Amino acid sequence: MNFVDEPIVALATAQGISAIAVIRLSGKDSIAIAQRVFRGKELTKQPSHTIHFGTLHDGEKNIDEVLISLFKEPNSFTKENAVEISCHGSPIIVKEIIKTLLKHGARLATPGEFTKRAFLNGRFDLAQAEAVADIINAETDNARQAALNQMRGGFSKEIQHLREELIHFASLIELELDFGEEDVEFAKRDDLRNLILKIQSYLKVLINSFDQGNVIKNGIPTVIAGKPNAGKSTLLNALLNEEKAIVSEIPGTTRDVIEDEMILGGISFRFMDTAGLRETVDIVEALGIERTRESLRKASLILYLFDLSKSSLEDIHNEENEIKELNVPYLKVGNKVDKADAELIQKLEREDFILISASQKKNIQQLKDKILSRFQIDQVKQGDVLVTNLRHYQGLKQTDESLSRVLVGMGSGITGDFLAMDIRQALHYLGEITGQITTDDLLANIFSKFCIGK
Amino acid sequence: MNFVDEPIVALATAQGISAIAVIRLSGKDSIAIAQRVFRGKELTKQPSHTIHFGTLHDGEKNIDEVLISLFKEPNSFTKENAVEISCHGSPIIVKEIIKTLLKHGARLATPGEFTKRAFLNGRFDLAQAEAVADIINAETDNARQAALNQMRGGFSKEIQHLREELIHFASLIELELDFGEEDVEFAKRDDLRNLILKIQSYLKVLINSFDQGNVIKNGIPTVIAGKPNAGKSTLLNALLNEEKAIVSEIPGTTRDVIEDEMILGGISFRFMDTAGLRETVDIVEALGIERTRESLRKASLILYLFDLSKSSLEDIHNEENEIKELNVPYLKVGNKVDKADAELIQKLEREDFILISASQKKNIQQLKDKILSRFQIDQVKQGDVLVTNLRHYQGLKQTDESLSRVLVGMGSGITGDFLAMDIRQALHYLGEITGQITTDDLLANIFSKFCIGK
Repeated sequence: MNFVDEPIVALATAQGISAIAVIRLSGKDSIAIAQRVFRGKELTKQPSHTIHFGTLHDGEKNIDEVLISLFKEPNSFTKENAVEISCHGSPIIVKEIIKTLLKHGARLATPGEFTKRAFLNGRFDLAQAEAVADIINAETDNARQAALNQMRGGFSKEIQHLREELIHFASLIELELDFGEEDVEFAKRDDLRNLILKIQSYLKVLINSFDQGNVIKNGIPTVIAGKPNAGKSTLLNALLNEEKAIVSEIPGTTRDVIEDEMILGGISFRFMDTAGLRETVDIVEALGIERTRESLRKASLILYLFDLSKSSLEDIHNEENEIKELNVPYLKVGNKVDKADAELIQKLEREDFILISASQKKNIQQLKDKILSRFQIDQVKQGDVLVTNLRHYQGLKQTDESLSRVLVGMGSGITGDFLAMDIRQALHYLGEITGQITTDDLLANIFSKFCIGK
Repeated sequence: MNFVDEPIVALATAQGISAIAVIRLSGKDSIAIAQRVFRGKELTKQPSHTIHFGTLHDGEKNIDEVLISLFKEPNSFTKENAVEISCHGSPIIVKEIIKTLLKHGARLATPGEFTKRAFLNGRFDLAQAEAVADIINAETDNARQAALNQMRGGFSKEIQHLREELIHFASLIELELDFGEEDVEFAKRDDLRNLILKIQSYLKVLINSFDQGNVIKNGIPTVIAGKPNAGKSTLLNALLNEEKAIVSEIPGTTRDVIEDEMILGGISFRFMDTAGLRETVDIVEALGIERTRESLRKASLILYLFDLSKSSLEDIHNEENEIKELNVPYLKVGNKVDKADAELIQKLEREDFILISASQKKNIQQLKDKILSRFQIDQVKQGDVLVTNLRHYQGLKQTDESLSRVLVGMGSGITGDFLAMDIRQALHYLGEITGQITTDDLLANIFSKFCIGK
C-alpha cells in the first residue's frame, strides 16, 4: 500500500499559546523533507531517537529556532520514518512551519491518520488503536486506567485466541459442506457447543462491563431544571463552587445552556444549568427554553429544583407529574429551604426530597452524595478489562447473538450450511472488533473521530 | 546560586486534549527524578539529546506510555540537566504525571522560570529572554519576525557595545574626581560629546521604531459602537465573515462585549461588538452598556455606526458630536445605505462617511481598506530591529534623557561629579534593558508575565 508512505504533517500538541508546540511528520520521506527546511546538522545522517537544534526556514526567511527529534522506521509510533519538530508555542509559528512543510512535499494529515498508519503497519490491533483516542479523551483517572489497560492489550488477545478456535471449527464445518450429501461430521458437535459456551461466557463478562465502562468513559450528563427563578444558576455555582453562571433576581436571566464538569468519586458529571421552563413571549428566552427541553431529553439524570418559598404541596406534586413524563431518572430537590413553611418541609422529608439552600450552600454535600449514590462504581485497577467503546459493545452483542443462533440451530438439527453461515457471522463481528476484518468505511468512521495530529 | 539547581516541572505545551503533551523538568537532579518514575532504559547512563520509550508509573500504578528526551548540562535550554516527557495529550494524564514528579522531588515551576534560569545561566541577555515570551505571543507574522530578530540578538549587541564605550568615559571621569581640586581632564570632552551623539542617534532610531513595533506586537483594539439596532453585530459578522454574534431585529440583543480578531495587512485588529448606546431600564442591558463605555475608553479606533434608514442629517451631526468628546480616533460609517434617502447619501459622501450595507456585505472591503490606511506599516524583514517592548522603550527614553542632561551639563561647564552622576544614570538604564544590571524585583516583574512551562 504505497499511499501509506506519503509524508503527512500535523500539530500534535494542543492549540494555543504555550512554551513549546510539537509538529509531527511521518512517512518515508519525512526526514528528507525536514532537512530541506532545517539549518543545522545533516538530519539524514543522524541515528534514530536523537535530537538536533537548529533553525527552521522558508527560503531566506527564518521562522523559528527548533529542536528536531528523529525516529527511523520501524522504530516510530507509525513504524515509518518520523520527525517531531519542537518549536516555540505560538499559533502563528506553527502555521508558518506547517505551511512550509506542505510546500516542501508533505500533506496535511487527516484526523487519526498517524494512529491509522500505526494500525495498518501492525503496531497494534484496532481495539488498541481506538484506546489511543480514549486515553487522550479520558476525563477521570478511572477512564485513563481503563483506556490504558485496553491500549496495552485488554481483551484483544483473548478475543483473537477464541476467534482462532472458532475458525478451526468453521473450517471443519465448511469441509463437511464440500462432501455435500455424504453424512460426514468432521466438527464434533459437543466440542463446538462447549467452545461456544466458553466464548459466550467470556463475552457476557465483557458485555456486562459496558454499563460501568460507559459511565467511566463518558461521564454523566446531569441537567438542572425547574421553573424560572427556582435557583438553578445558584445551584450550579454552589455545586461547582465558583461563579460560573450569571445570577440575578430576574426570572429568565439564563438563556444559553451553561455547563461545566465536576468529578465526584472518580466519575465525571457534566452539570448543565438551563433556562427556566415557562411560557414566554421573549424570543431569545423561548429559544433558550427549547434548548432546555433538548438537554432534558439527552440527560442521564435530572436535578429538578422546586422553589419551596413559593410552592404548596399541591403545586409541587403537579410539577413532579410533568417531570415523570420525561422518563429520565431525576432527583427531587427542594430549594430555598430557609424560606419554606415548616409543615411543608416535614411532608417533603417523608417523600424523598433533598432539601437544600443553594444560596446559603446548605446540604450541597448531601446532594452530591445522593447524586453519586446513583452511579456507584469501583475504582479501575491495572489489568481490569472493561468495555468502554460503543462499537466494541455492539460487536460483542452481535457476536453473542450469532453464537446463540448456532446453538439453537444445533439443537434443532439444522444443516451444516446454516450453521456455517452463523459461525461466519460471529467470526466477522469478532474480527471487526480487533480489526482482523476491516473495511475502508469502518476505518474511516473510527479514525475520523480522532483529533488531527494523533 | 544553589536554588537555581532545584528541579522544577511544568507542562510546556498548551492545555487541552491533543495527540501528545510535553512535560518539562529542569535542574541538576531532573534526570535522576525521571528515572525514579520510569520503566525502560537506565536514563542516567544515556547520552544527551537522546529519546527513550518506556512506561511512567507511580509505584504499582502505570500512568502512561511515554517518550523521554534527555538534555545534559550545559546543552539544554536552561543550561541545566533537563528532561522532556512526551505523554498522551490528556489533561488527566498530565496532572497525574506532574503529581508523581512532585512526589519524587520536583517542585512546580513558577511562570517563566525556565527562561529565567536560561538568562541567569548566561544563555542570553534580558532583552532576548523577553523576546522568548514575545515570540510565543506573536499574533501576526510581522510580530513573530520582530520577536525572532530580537531573540537572535536584535539591538542587544549594539547597546552592550555602546554601553562599554560609555563605561570607558565614565571611569575616566571618575578618575578625574579622585584628583579632587587638581584641574586634570582624562576624558576628552569632545570625544565624550561625539560618543553621546552617536549613542543618541542610535537610541533615536530605536525609540522611533516603537510606534510601529507596538502596533505590530499588540494589534489594534477597534470598537464597533452606535445606537441600538444600528447593525453593529451584523457588521462584526460581515467583517469576520462568520456568524459570530447573535443578530436579531430586537434592539438590545447584544449584551456582553463580543470580540474577535482579524489580520488585515499583517496587523492584528481586535474587533469588539458592543451593546447599543441608549438609556435603558433593563438591568442586564444596562450592565452591557457600561461595558461598552469601558471598551470605548480603551479603543485605538472606533467604528461608529449610524443607522441611515432612520436618521436625518441633523440626528447624525448630533450623534457625531457625542463621539468627538471621547477623544479617540473614529471612522464614520453609515449603515443600511440601501434603505437611505438619496439626498442624505449625497451629503454624507461629501463629509467623509463610509457608506455600507452590513447585511448585504456592501462596501465591506472599502471599509477594511480605510481601517488599514490608518495604520500603514511595512513588512518586518529578517534583521530589522524594532522595539516592541514597553519596558525597553521606557529604558531607551530614560537613557536618552540622561545623556541629554550630560550634554547640557558639559555645555554649561558643570563639575565632573554631576557629569558622572548623569552618565551613571544612563549606564544604569542601558544595563537594565539588556539585564547587565538587574534586581530581583525587575526579574520577578518580567518573568511573572511569562506562561508557566516557559
